This record gives sequence, structure tokens and C-alpha cells, in this order.
Amino acid sequence: MTNGAHDMLQLYFWPMACSLASRIALMEAGIEARYHLVHLWSKKRIEDDADFLAISPKGAVPVLILDSGDRLTESAAVLQYIADLNPHAELAPRPGDPGRYRLQEWLSFIGTEMHKGFLFPTFWYKDEAAKASARERIGQTVDHAASHLAGRDYLVGDRFTVADGYLAWALLLLRHCGVDIDGRPQLASYLARIRARPMVSEAIRTEMALSKTVAP
Amino acid sequence: MTNGAHDMLQLYFWPMACSLASRIALMEAGIEARYHLVHLWSKKRIEDDADFLAISPKGAVPVLILDSGDRLTESAAVLQYIADLNPHAELAPRPGDPGRYRLQEWLSFIGTEMHKGFLFPTFWYKDEAAKASARERIGQTVDHAASHLAGRDYLVGDRFTVADGYLAWALLLLRHCGVDIDGRPQLASYLARIRARPMVSEAIRTEMALSKTVAP
Repeated sequence: MTNGAHDMLQLYFWPMACSLASRIALMEAGIEARYHLVHLWSKKRIEDDADFLAISPKGAVPVLILDSGDRLTESAAVLQYIADLNPHAELAPRPGDPGRYRLQEWLSFIGTEMHKGFLFPTFWYKDEAAKASARERIGQTVDHAASHLAGRDYLVGDRFTVADGYLAWALLLLRHCGVDIDGRPQLASYLARIRARPMVSEAIRTEMALSKTVAP
Repeated sequence: MTNGAHDMLQLYFWPMACSLASRIALMEAGIEARYHLVHLWSKKRIEDDADFLAISPKGAVPVLILDSGDRLTESAAVLQYIADLNPHAELAPRPGDPGRYRLQEWLSFIGTEMHKGFLFPTFWYKDEAAKASARERIGQTVDHAASHLAGRDYLVGDRFTVADGYLAWALLLLRHCGVDIDGRPQLASYLARIRARPMVSEAIRTEMALSKTVAP
């Protein structure tokens, strides 16, 4: 498939939310897409105030609108879908390859332990004790990633995959939430390495700029 | 591949934890495996007091020990691995098929919204306000699954997949935690249908019996 065949792909995102990983994947895959900023709190599409819940009842990002018009949600699924759209970009081990299960393992770990186990409570829980409960395990979660990255450049195999874009997003937000990334040299150098990629750098710059135009 | 080729597969589990979904997948796939009960709180393998953290530093179940000796963790990865080991059992759309991304979407939703977003805090958080924060969204989470299952027998396509074993596990525990499953007819009838499968029924019976032999 060529990039041109996918010019109708659409990604719903909130700046610097986990949908950043999908933007990175699309850019690394060389796939053009239309990007719709949705306000995660008001559940409105910014460009025209359309009801986001009518587009995706879960009201969460990312939502990828496929060529068929079908909607795909959940980062783990969206990222693998994007990677498989352009196999030549080699953004994931091929489906069925042993490495694909490692990719799925990391997508799940980032999605459950880092995102839903820590970042989500930190941003959405109102109760301080509840936020503190979510914080109890984040040290060992981050240590697990740091330990895995000792002596490795990437999470899976010896090249950049969609899981690296996802982890880079998580580490940026973890650092923003006061989790010590820079004191863990493997993580700090990994994050610097992933951020130095031109597409990752451009994706982050784009969303950082957009984040200044909207407020929760 | 034949079942005999996989008699060295080993699954680490805690009774009625999410590893139940992996047991269901193995049984539905007709794959024999050795099952190791590990105490999730003491991090010891029950049969010989071996240190579970030396086997899997994350200290969580499921852990699947592959023929190669490699360890695979995270339900989303383990379940897809098991399904792909015996494609004839058709426990997942083939890798690369459009349905596979739907499967991944549901595995992620169950793992993040139901398990890590609600069941984990409910069982592990000590603070009552923290448990209450985790409970705030579970109604809409469960409603999303109920709405999807209206007029469907299974989560993905028209047959049982590993995602159904995973959702059945989650629904059993949600009901145990006081979430209203029986008041949502689609979910109640779905759960009854999945539980009526001989392998699912046997897997639950086995783990329910084991759960009476151990305490947190």
C-alpha cells in the first residue's frame, strides 16, 4: 500500500495525550492523515463543536477512522494497525513473528502499568489519597523499563518500533508528574535518543504548541 | 503444531486472577501445560517456595514459559500467543486479519479499563477513597461492553475468541466486587453463555477449588 491510499485516515487526539504515540507512528510510517483535536473534558471536536461521543462512545483518544469508515480505538490496537499499514517502515515485527508478542507485551505494560495504573489516576482522580495510591508502584514500574533498556537502544529487537513512540510519550508525562526519569540513566538516554528522531521531535513540537491553545 | 509439541509450556497463575484467561485459552486450544501456583503476596511458588521474582521480576501473573525457556507476560500478549500456537482452534482472527485489531482493541479495553482501572485498585489499594475513585467510571465501562454485546454472541466476529475468556474472567470479578452485571441482561446472558462452555467451566471450577486452599 502506498501513502496516497491512506490520505483519508483520520486521527482524533488531545495534545500530549497517549494519542501522541499514534501521531508518531503515522509520521514514522510516512502516512498522511487528518488530525482532529477533541476536547477530552467537554467531549467536543474543536474545529466545529461536533459531539465526540457520537463519533466514539468511549470518549477517549486515540480514535483512528479507517478508510472503510470503521473506528479503531485503544493505543495497542491502533499502533499495530498503523505499523502493519506500511510494513516497509518496519515499525513492528511482522504479525506472527516471535517479536510481535514482545511488542504486544510492551504495549500492554505501558498501557496498563504506566498509563492506566499511574498517569490516568494522576490526571483524573480528584482525591489526593487516591493519587498517592496510584503512585506507590510507579518506581518499580519505571525500574522494570530501565532494567530492560540497559544495553539496548530500543524496546523490541534492534530498531525503532511503535512501542518506542508509546514509551517515549509515557516517559515525558511521567517526568512531568515528578517521576524521576533523569536519575535513571538508561531511561534518560533512551528518551533523548527517541526524541532525537526527526518525526518524533516534530510530533512532540506540534502537540506541545497545540497544548498551549487549549485548557482542560 | 500438535498438542504434544507444547507439553513443556508452563503457566504461572494465582487462582481467579487474570491468569485464568490464559488457562481458559490453553484448554480451549487443547494445549497441555504445567501450571504453577504462585502466591501473589509472598511472591513464592507454592510447590517449592521458589522465588517468583527470580522467575519474573515483575512479580505478576500470567507468566507463560515457552518451549524455548523464554518468559512471556501480559495477558494481551500471552493470549494472542496461545491462540496462534494452535490456529486450528480458531481462538483469534489470524494475525494481520482486520478482526485481529478488534481482538487487540478488546484485550486492551479489558486490561486497561476493567482490570487496571478498577479491579486492581479494588483489590490492592488500601485507601477507601482511592478505591472509590477507581469505582467512578466502572458503570460506563461495563455499559460499553453491554452495548457492544447487544445482538452478539461473542466480542469479536461470530465465534469464541481468547478475548471472551478474558472478559468472562473480568465480569466474574466485577460481580464479586459489587458491580451490577445481572442487571445488564446482555452481560448476564453473555457470561452465562461463555461459562457454559465445557473448558471454561472446568477452568473456573479448578481455580475456584484452588482459591480455597490459599489466602492472600
